[in-house]
Amino acid sequence: MQPNDPFMEPPRLPRGFVAAGRGVGLKAQGNDLALFLSRRPAAAAALFTRNHFPGAPIILGRQRMRRGRLQGVVVNSAYSNVATGEAGLEDAREMARLAAREFAGFLGQESEQGQGAEALEDQVLVGSTGVIGRPLPMDRIRNGIRGMGSELDSDPWPAARAIMTTDTRPKVFSLQVGDAVVTGVGKGAGMIAPNMATMLVYLFTDAQVEVPELQAALQEASRQSFELLSVDTDTSTSDMVVALANGEAGEVDHRAFVDALTSLCTRLAEEMARDGEGATKLVRVLVEGAVDPSEARTVARSVVESPLMKTMAYGADPNVGRILMAVGKCVGCRIRPERVDASIQGVEVIRGGRSVDFDEARVRELLGGDPVEIRIDLGVGTARGRALGCDLTAGYIEENAAYASS
Amino acid sequence: MQPNDPFMEPPRLPRGFVAAGRGVGLKAQGNDLALFLSRRPAAAAALFTRNHFPGAPIILGRQRMRRGRLQGVVVNSAYSNVATGEAGLEDAREMARLAAREFAGFLGQESEQGQGAEALEDQVLVGSTGVIGRPLPMDRIRNGIRGMGSELDSDPWPAARAIMTTDTRPKVFSLQVGDAVVTGVGKGAGMIAPNMATMLVYLFTDAQVEVPELQAALQEASRQSFELLSVDTDTSTSDMVVALANGEAGEVDHRAFVDALTSLCTRLAEEMARDGEGATKLVRVLVEGAVDPSEARTVARSVVESPLMKTMAYGADPNVGRILMAVGKCVGCRIRPERVDASIQGVEVIRGGRSVDFDEARVRELLGGDPVEIRIDLGVGTARGRALGCDLTAGYIEENAAYASS
Repeated sequence: MQPNDPFMEPPRLPRGFVAAGRGVGLKAQGNDLALFLSRRPAAAAALFTRNHFPGAPIILGRQRMRRGRLQGVVVNSAYSNVATGEAGLEDAREMARLAAREFAGFLGQESEQGQGAEALEDQVLVGSTGVIGRPLPMDRIRNGIRGMGSELDSDPWPAARAIMTTDTRPKVFSLQVGDAVVTGVGKGAGMIAPNMATMLVYLFTDAQVEVPELQAALQEASRQSFELLSVDTDTSTSDMVVALANGEAGEVDHRAFVDALTSLCTRLAEEMARDGEGATKLVRVLVEGAVDPSEARTVARSVVESPLMKTMAYGADPNVGRILMAVGKCVGCRIRPERVDASIQGVEVIRGGRSVDFDEARVRELLGGDPVEIRIDLGVGTARGRALGCDLTAGYIEENAAYASS
Repeated sequence: MQPNDPFMEPPRLPRGFVAAGRGVGLKAQGNDLALFLSRRPAAAAALFTRNHFPGAPIILGRQRMRRGRLQGVVVNSAYSNVATGEAGLEDAREMARLAAREFAGFLGQESEQGQGAEALEDQVLVGSTGVIGRPLPMDRIRNGIRGMGSELDSDPWPAARAIMTTDTRPKVFSLQVGDAVVTGVGKGAGMIAPNMATMLVYLFTDAQVEVPELQAALQEASRQSFELLSVDTDTSTSDMVVALANGEAGEVDHRAFVDALTSLCTRLAEEMARDGEGATKLVRVLVEGAVDPSEARTVARSVVESPLMKTMAYGADPNVGRILMAVGKCVGCRIRPERVDASIQGVEVIRGGRSVDFDEARVRELLGGDPVEIRIDLGVGTARGRALGCDLTAGYIEENAAYASS
């Protein structure tokens, strides 16, 4: 925890939410199946991948989001259920049905009115992440999920671990907003780039927020966070960001809520970058002085995605000409070379489009840290833009040269 | 040499061209300074990088190309002379002047009329490739170039080796066109992506071709070759492709000339991909059945540039869902998932947007070869497009995590 870190320690699920995670044999070891439940139906909002090959859970999720209400989420890792056709869609539906039974059992024990699994099923969202193109081993899921309802409790960690693929650590953060709490559980690692940044993110709050407000808040928070994130320029077929608001803590100030959601999503996005496949550090690129925000973002993204910048960040070798190269390759943007300044962690390395004499040992040391922040001033306007990424390492190659068979 | 390989073995410079290469101490070892000369002024055409931060040689080259005539080329490796300001431009001019003196000395010995160095200077093109932002060690170049004129001869290899940076082997190819020869000398390795593909390429022919024809031929050949090439999505600040035609062999059929130039550039581009930084193989992606050629190229480039496809090609692990992912992330293209077919080296792996049951061991073996060819049929039109690239390996990371200091 950093000084003045606004995040709750430890993070916790907001009132009325419970979760569970189990290993059902999809991964060689560890948890691979997660359940999240709100005790009462929640207002829901979602953003899904724009990839032309959405997985079965995305197709089903788009249908289920039409009513703007969800009560539960079931997620598996190791298999993405993408490019699996009609059978894959039926598998996703069955996952929701199996989860609904567990949820009904749990709620039946807890509430006087009880609730039938059939009524719940349509309010269960499914998520899957992992290898593309392989059918889900439904027998393992059917057997493994049985009895998970009895494990649902307020501890988010077993579920957070279950949604991980090549992530090295679970990601859960909580923030207080008035009397309410907002908690995000996410996974990242690879195949991450805007439209959507590749990931699964589940956001839960006990604040009372209506569906249109929730959707708008989610879009704004995502634009400021996940949409700035690129681990490897690849866009997953499984991305989703989902928010559930169950209202148990009553209304909160809307602006404060959007700000909290944005902070939470930014923290999750940064942790995803830092924990990107093979990554050793977070890289933030801030571009100022652009003609318009879109060009600022284009330049920021060009720098954060450049393999030569990423290997420089990894090797901590201040080959700062690569920053110029990555700025300069944005051929559609209005750039005047002689006006471009740049700094690494506050140390000026480029002025007026030229390398300046800087303390190489000092910059090498700064590049060795985490995060690495690169600021670029284009000097031709007043617009700003940001991008979030990570370094590129031999670890990325190792993980991805043999992922299907691992 | 492959069966029916049209390239001359060994390659040779066309009539009237000579070259030399030396090590003058810019690299730790090996040749780093190259001279190319036509005995008579040649028609010349060139394409330069579109990066906003062109190196001094590019700025100077644009000026010198205005008259469409060149007689010599001088190229150094290890220092790119980029982001070096007015002093860098003066260094580039001095390199041309130093080379012109050597050329004049050589021609004075050979021709009765002799030729003054001053007259030659404006017809010398300069090229530099290497680290960005460091001043050229002009003292080493001044000392090292002295006497190189006496080494100019018909052997292209010393010069081809001198322009290499992280290339592992020199690249020279020759083709016969009628009575003429076209020879290309190139270097690639890293920072390679269209607009321009990063590289230095010098093309020499003794065919008689007028400047407008030569420029058009160069553009067409480049569009079919270098513009399809992406090693790492980064665009160099030093790219140039230059063609010199000295006419010594007389006129040739124009279509045959363009075809030969295209074959030569394609071969150079493929060798650059295959010898990309850390690369172990060439990857060709052919997209058919697109709505228009631009979308076909966009999809082909998306696949060839995808880090996850590139690591798959390296690891020879048939995680074919990554092909779908890379096709699907072209959100602006007209794609119907259920119509997409794909094959690896002729073995169908995707049909109608779904993985098919294929022989994994066989595809693993094919992916292990060089080149790897991936064909994708989008099934929505008749347009085609191609892209050339390579695999992504730990070698790329190693080379680039510590390039400036090596």
